Amino acid sequence: MSNIRHALTVKRSDDFAQWYQEVISAADMAEESGVRGCMVIKPWGYGIWERIQRLLDQRIKDTGHDNCYFPIFIPLSNFEREAEHVDGFAKEMAVVTHHRLIADGSGKLIPDPEAKLEEPLVVRPTSETIIGDAMARWIQSWRDLPLLTNQWANVVRWEMRTRMFLRTSEFLWQEGHTAHADEAEAKEHTLRMLEVYRACAEEDLALPVIAGEKPENERFPGAVETWSIEAMMQDGKALQAGTSHYLGTNFSEAAGIRYQDKEGGQQLCHTTSWGVSTRMIGGVIMTHGDDDGLRVPPTIAPWQVVILPMLRDKPEDEALLAYCEELRAALAQKTAFGERLRVLLDKKPGKAAAKRWDWVRKGAPVIIEVGGRDMEGGVVSMLRRDALWADSGKPDFHSPEKMAAAEQIPSLLEEIQASLFNEAQERRDRNIERGITTMEQLSEFYAEDKAQPGWAEVQWSKPTGDDLEAVVEQLKALKLTIRNVPMNGEPVDGTCIFTGQPAIERIYVAKAY
Amino acid sequence: MSNIRHALTVKRSDDFAQWYQEVISAADMAEESGVRGCMVIKPWGYGIWERIQRLLDQRIKDTGHDNCYFPIFIPLSNFEREAEHVDGFAKEMAVVTHHRLIADGSGKLIPDPEAKLEEPLVVRPTSETIIGDAMARWIQSWRDLPLLTNQWANVVRWEMRTRMFLRTSEFLWQEGHTAHADEAEAKEHTLRMLEVYRACAEEDLALPVIAGEKPENERFPGAVETWSIEAMMQDGKALQAGTSHYLGTNFSEAAGIRYQDKEGGQQLCHTTSWGVSTRMIGGVIMTHGDDDGLRVPPTIAPWQVVILPMLRDKPEDEALLAYCEELRAALAQKTAFGERLRVLLDKKPGKAAAKRWDWVRKGAPVIIEVGGRDMEGGVVSMLRRDALWADSGKPDFHSPEKMAAAEQIPSLLEEIQASLFNEAQERRDRNIERGITTMEQLSEFYAEDKAQPGWAEVQWSKPTGDDLEAVVEQLKALKLTIRNVPMNGEPVDGTCIFTGQPAIERIYVAKAY
Repeated sequence: MSNIRHALTVKRSDDFAQWYQEVISAADMAEESGVRGCMVIKPWGYGIWERIQRLLDQRIKDTGHDNCYFPIFIPLSNFEREAEHVDGFAKEMAVVTHHRLIADGSGKLIPDPEAKLEEPLVVRPTSETIIGDAMARWIQSWRDLPLLTNQWANVVRWEMRTRMFLRTSEFLWQEGHTAHADEAEAKEHTLRMLEVYRACAEEDLALPVIAGEKPENERFPGAVETWSIEAMMQDGKALQAGTSHYLGTNFSEAAGIRYQDKEGGQQLCHTTSWGVSTRMIGGVIMTHGDDDGLRVPPTIAPWQVVILPMLRDKPEDEALLAYCEELRAALAQKTAFGERLRVLLDKKPGKAAAKRWDWVRKGAPVIIEVGGRDMEGGVVSMLRRDALWADSGKPDFHSPEKMAAAEQIPSLLEEIQASLFNEAQERRDRNIERGITTMEQLSEFYAEDKAQPGWAEVQWSKPTGDDLEAVVEQLKALKLTIRNVPMNGEPVDGTCIFTGQPAIERIYVAKAY
Repeated sequence: MSNIRHALTVKRSDDFAQWYQEVISAADMAEESGVRGCMVIKPWGYGIWERIQRLLDQRIKDTGHDNCYFPIFIPLSNFEREAEHVDGFAKEMAVVTHHRLIADGSGKLIPDPEAKLEEPLVVRPTSETIIGDAMARWIQSWRDLPLLTNQWANVVRWEMRTRMFLRTSEFLWQEGHTAHADEAEAKEHTLRMLEVYRACAEEDLALPVIAGEKPENERFPGAVETWSIEAMMQDGKALQAGTSHYLGTNFSEAAGIRYQDKEGGQQLCHTTSWGVSTRMIGGVIMTHGDDDGLRVPPTIAPWQVVILPMLRDKPEDEALLAYCEELRAALAQKTAFGERLRVLLDKKPGKAAAKRWDWVRKGAPVIIEVGGRDMEGGVVSMLRRDALWADSGKPDFHSPEKMAAAEQIPSLLEEIQASLFNEAQERRDRNIERGITTMEQLSEFYAEDKAQPGWAEVQWSKPTGDDLEAVVEQLKALKLTIRNVPMNGEPVDGTCIFTGQPAIERIYVAKAY
């Protein structure tokens, strides 16, 4: 293996944003499509999304939800019913106004003026209002509750500044929507789904997250409470990786979601909604990527083990392939994380070194090279993507006996998963500053010349309304936002750094994506 | 079990179209959404789609395709490049013209005139043109070929007359798109994917189909060859259940999909595309449904076995539930069709009889009722949904010992799958008329007063152009269309029933969905 230290041209420490873009293209995950704000998700990127989908879908089903599918088009009038909701979304919606094209005089296609819709349709930015209509039809009595539904879908928000996976005009997500008999049950469900997201992020994606409530200025438009999981990227910024909303009776009132209670009275349902999206893949890249490319956690790697025979276009290749195939077949029978291993024997033509670097950049967790000498010795040359380099500065190859490798790999994958999580968690914890008690200190901590300062955990008095707006403005001047109020925050013991009043709770502030 | 003979109010023989709608609502599969032409797919309908997706996705991956995701929006100019393609689709596309809403004077939302798109975007009706753009970027050399890609997505075609699952403005599908070095390889791939669809339809959905080539008037807009699988519904009509297209170099020319060949020359790629959609679910209903509701083939049933404890809200319920749980757990360890069994212990409140009929209407393949008397006897009461009624006119319960049931059910499920397929195939074969040699006979066969006459296999001289148009018009007068030219048709031995010239091949004609 050649000793090239960087598979990429940009290091994280040089230009994190540029490095991010380079990883996406070097790992062949996605690319700009040419259509404004929309990306093409390529096989390696989509394969990771398929893994996330499968694991999260099981978690969502395990908590009693059924998948449904609702229309992509939402009539304008649906948005008129919930004022806050439309204020939040009207600025960035794709609007369908015609249902036919026609050639103009010059042969150019234009929307046919004869085919104008009476009521324009919005391409869903989120589905509370259209699913609310269905809930109103489906729910009659307390016996129909709770109603627990989920859909996997594409949504469109007309973003002005886009960045692949993190913010695109069209993105893929799941959105869960539930209706409950009362506030307590709906709030409990909001938190149950937040916990599902925490578990998915931490256990499946190896992303340590902090679960907590968003301050009122960061609530989902129309929500009573918004909760989030927040992850720290390697540049110290926060990424909101998933949200869960308690919607009170706001959408029920708008759509007429009512049930007859046990006493025969009519009651409004309390609803929730929650979603995670392809954005999570951006979080995986910025958490686990290194200067050689992506490192994919084994649970969500489309291929967990890639076997690269060093083919030489000679008759000996046949024996080498057979040797590799024995290993592949043995590995494919093994399980890790309760599933069969996903193993690729990569027979594609191409130089072994080039192919190895392709898989390093893509971040396959275990890369196994097999050459003639390995075969003679009955061994394989094995690399852990998460610990690629030995102290010597050379790739840290291990050479177990072939079938011993097959035995070791399941637990090795679990070790890699744990190691990626621990590395990220330790980095995050190292980069949370807990000693800030004044705005001056906060301002100093986030001074322009400091790269990647991380997050600050500070105490505040939980101001509301205009007082909160003033805090938000103060933070905005430092390019900071409040991330969330952690669920299991330490008790407070001081004063609010913004208002000087006695502190009520702790919050995280950070720069954010 | 009560002896009600019909779980539905309409029989197939009374009004097939009405029966179809009733099955969908009685099985709680889908409903109209209130948004023009769009349906809501409910858990049982979506669960069947998830099963079809999983099985077909594996078949598509097994033939070397990777999944990707491409933008939902296609710039108008993409459509201008391929004239036939746009002629075929321009009439039914949803066009996005604005990216923001604004309140007018009265507070009503309207598209913001300030936010008009410079170039309108079409909501994809199919993705040849946008995927063609990507192929043009991705393919440089013969080494990049074949390029085998697939996406699962929603598409929109502005249909005037819609019918749930069969024809909706928005529908879900997969669309495969491939590029090849030459015509022979692309044509071979077109047929390989047709065979994948045949296997999926017959083995997974138990839908017997006839694979063959569409006549030129029925080709996909822009295709050189279109192939289809055609299934016969119980009313004798044909349903096109999937298509595979050889696109020649039409889309390559339009999008500039070129490669450098081994000699260094520039060549156009030959492309293919192929798709199946939620329409297949309509085919499942109209093939396997009966006068009691749906019958779902076990391979695609979200739940293959449903256990219904006859709960009485008494302390004995606990022992009954434990008894049922033992059976559920035993069944969940069993496999059929190479997968673990999907077994539901339905503990929901409600009268046992009502719940039983819910599952009959939904078509769960095996329904097991367990009452106190069953438990005392150590047995269960088991119903096959595909053979619900005994000759006596009573439900045909079997009462195996509990653990014997667990042993029998895997092979029973395989038997049910085969039985549904055979029943459909025998019916289809019975309803294909092969003796028609003149237009008079054809006209007689499809006379208005004959209900459900089935298909006619006739011989023709394969006219083209205007001559074909004349044939199409003749058939149209009888409300018939040419379905396809079967792949392994019998040799011809007569004259064309349309032109009187020597026959060249056999074709199927039928009324169709």
